[in-house]
Amino acid sequence: SIDAERTMSMIEASCAWGSTPDGGMNRLSCNDDDRKVRDWFVDEAKKCGCEIKVDQMGNIFAIRPGQNNNLPPIGLGSHLDTQPTGGRYDGILGVISALEVLKTIHANNVTTYAPLAVVNWTNEEGARFPPAMLCSGVWGGEFSVDYGHSRTDPGGKSLGQELERIGYKGDVPCSYDANPLLAHFEVHIEQGPILDVAKEAIAVVTGVQSMCWYHIDVAGREAHTGTTPMDRRSDALLGAAKIIIETNRFVTEGELAARGARATIAVINSLPQSINTIAGKVKMGLDIRAPADADTAKVEELCRNSFQKIAEEAGLTVAVDRFWTSPALHFDPTMVNCVRESAKSLGCAMELVSGAGHDSVYASRKVPTAMIFVRCRDGISHNPAEYSSPEDCAAGAQTLLGAYLRYDDY
Amino acid sequence: SIDAERTMSMIEASCAWGSTPDGGMNRLSCNDDDRKVRDWFVDEAKKCGCEIKVDQMGNIFAIRPGQNNNLPPIGLGSHLDTQPTGGRYDGILGVISALEVLKTIHANNVTTYAPLAVVNWTNEEGARFPPAMLCSGVWGGEFSVDYGHSRTDPGGKSLGQELERIGYKGDVPCSYDANPLLAHFEVHIEQGPILDVAKEAIAVVTGVQSMCWYHIDVAGREAHTGTTPMDRRSDALLGAAKIIIETNRFVTEGELAARGARATIAVINSLPQSINTIAGKVKMGLDIRAPADADTAKVEELCRNSFQKIAEEAGLTVAVDRFWTSPALHFDPTMVNCVRESAKSLGCAMELVSGAGHDSVYASRKVPTAMIFVRCRDGISHNPAEYSSPEDCAAGAQTLLGAYLRYDDY
Ligand SMILES: NC(=O)NCCC(=O)O
Ligand SMILES: NC(=O)NCCC(=O)O
Repeated sequence: SIDAERTMSMIEASCAWGSTPDGGMNRLSCNDDDRKVRDWFVDEAKKCGCEIKVDQMGNIFAIRPGQNNNLPPIGLGSHLDTQPTGGRYDGILGVISALEVLKTIHANNVTTYAPLAVVNWTNEEGARFPPAMLCSGVWGGEFSVDYGHSRTDPGGKSLGQELERIGYKGDVPCSYDANPLLAHFEVHIEQGPILDVAKEAIAVVTGVQSMCWYHIDVAGREAHTGTTPMDRRSDALLGAAKIIIETNRFVTEGELAARGARATIAVINSLPQSINTIAGKVKMGLDIRAPADADTAKVEELCRNSFQKIAEEAGLTVAVDRFWTSPALHFDPTMVNCVRESAKSLGCAMELVSGAGHDSVYASRKVPTAMIFVRCRDGISHNPAEYSSPEDCAAGAQTLLGAYLRYDDY
Repeated sequence: SIDAERTMSMIEASCAWGSTPDGGMNRLSCNDDDRKVRDWFVDEAKKCGCEIKVDQMGNIFAIRPGQNNNLPPIGLGSHLDTQPTGGRYDGILGVISALEVLKTIHANNVTTYAPLAVVNWTNEEGARFPPAMLCSGVWGGEFSVDYGHSRTDPGGKSLGQELERIGYKGDVPCSYDANPLLAHFEVHIEQGPILDVAKEAIAVVTGVQSMCWYHIDVAGREAHTGTTPMDRRSDALLGAAKIIIETNRFVTEGELAARGARATIAVINSLPQSINTIAGKVKMGLDIRAPADADTAKVEELCRNSFQKIAEEAGLTVAVDRFWTSPALHFDPTMVNCVRESAKSLGCAMELVSGAGHDSVYASRKVPTAMIFVRCRDGISHNPAEYSSPEDCAAGAQTLLGAYLRYDDY
């Protein structure tokens, strides 16, 4: 059995770096707090006899030997970076649950069949260096190392520079081929309300929905706000407002809404940022999701057509660039079954499809993968108010232990 | 007569600092280019026997003595700062026309009755340090020196600091009482399409419309874009989009539109600027104008009520803060008549109310004031494509000379 108190005190300890006065976290990937929590993670893992491997993307693999060290390790991973207005559980609970499994096994002097790797993936959030799941994505072959290193934050600093600065640009090649795992398990908070509404502590995750990210650039004509008649304007921000409302309409009406499609514009900035100059340019980010790939494609098509119409009517131009695509996926049946059996032993049987992307998405490109969801209050995430109870956190870690040992046996 | 070629070559010379590759200008108040063009302005004025006074807000008064030096000088002023995507005429043409009048009088060895002051007002645009017309506003008693010095740019630098840095924080108290003028004339491009449509070179400006500026803060709840059902969101940006569209509707329909009211939201930024976190906060700037004060008040009321309704329906809060109010005004009849007579001698008779604010607004709080508008192509301003022909620029400077000499005689 895992130690519920130890799990919670590790969450507490790791949140010393990057905590915000409102009880949340702001630990953007590769900032100074991320460096400090990485150092702490490495120390904790070393205490359990782990060897540390840091790859070119800063992914940390803490490996505890097993009986058969010719096999790659079974990975238990998630991420320690957070959103700028993040909580104490998203990603963090997954890494801490994995450390807890490691500590439990180590304290009980268990020698597993395969080696065990606790993995901290870099920049899962994508909040500082879009896209999300970037460094598990490099490992899983979705992105090249050069692409990963060259991603920049809004201040123009690249991920490669920042990894070097914090001392976590490792030598191990970042790829499954050079540094394989045998399988990948991940505990994560649900980040949605389904478990909370159903009053269930945990769920077996059977797959992940389809998701795409876009840059939208609207261009109009700068002009004086005081002297330019309303009917002689090409106002990029007025066009952007229509785009935001239409996008929302496509996923709140009709069949797409019924099938659970979602679309969100959350990032917007106008230029030239002068109160008396009509916006000549507006830059936005668009996030489209749906359980089925066909539905994200359908929402994209509706958006493209409507944006074009809005632009034409208002004398604007609009460019839509899909820069990230993550198709819907189903996890490995054997792995899912290990989670299912483990959950069942705690009396839990709920099964869910994830609404969010996770490092397990890219891990699953290369190795059998499965996930465990933990209930979070009101389904709130990416928010300082994010909360999972100690009991639910313990249930997550315990399910991970059981699922992992089942797979190791298998 | 003024020298049309000299006028154009002074525009050219002064635009050496802050010009952009697209033919426009980016000379935000108190940046390094603003320092350089100020140095140039001071040199040019000194060549005509001017004494230079720099006040606490960096306003520069270049004073040429007259016959009766117990009288305050008659001011001919405008501004050399520009929008970030500005043109080569807005403000610049006014200062250059005043320099041209000075040079013409000096070259002809005229001793005027009152002294003459060519004035470069600081931070007219308000693009870097809102609000607009800030330093003529301090001189005219609308704002305190402390308020002026404490205005900050988006990077957090204050106008006081920046004036000090560029060496233009002077010792002369910034006020009409300590450093009076006798009157104030200003040449400015129209920045709107009326003269261009009417095929007239210049206009007599009889007054300025009513204008107000606001900060709008919308607050919702940060949440995950992928896992949060569409019906469980408090999306601050979706609310902001509705606010933008409603604001536009109020001034494009019905009586307010017919009476020429205008309302614009041009500045917007969302927080936390993460593509997969629903916007929890949106900050915007709103600009409302109308010929009549009652109509800006009416638009404000419609906005406040509708923003409240939008917020309530979507579980948001919205705060609206009016931080600048400039009531409609009529210029001094004697001064306007000097402009009218001077314009008539060039065959021009058009009269206009200004849609934009100008330093003359605050000058008129203390002294008789009038303005001359110069046609600009397609009414485009606050845009690199801003353009006035050499002939029209010359007509503006010539009208200024005539109006000024008439007032000096009077
Ligand atoms: N779990 C999580 O927030 N991952 C980031 C990718 C996404 O937005 O789904
Ligand atoms: N002329 C000009 O752009 N002045 C700034 C104040 C305003 O926006 O009207």
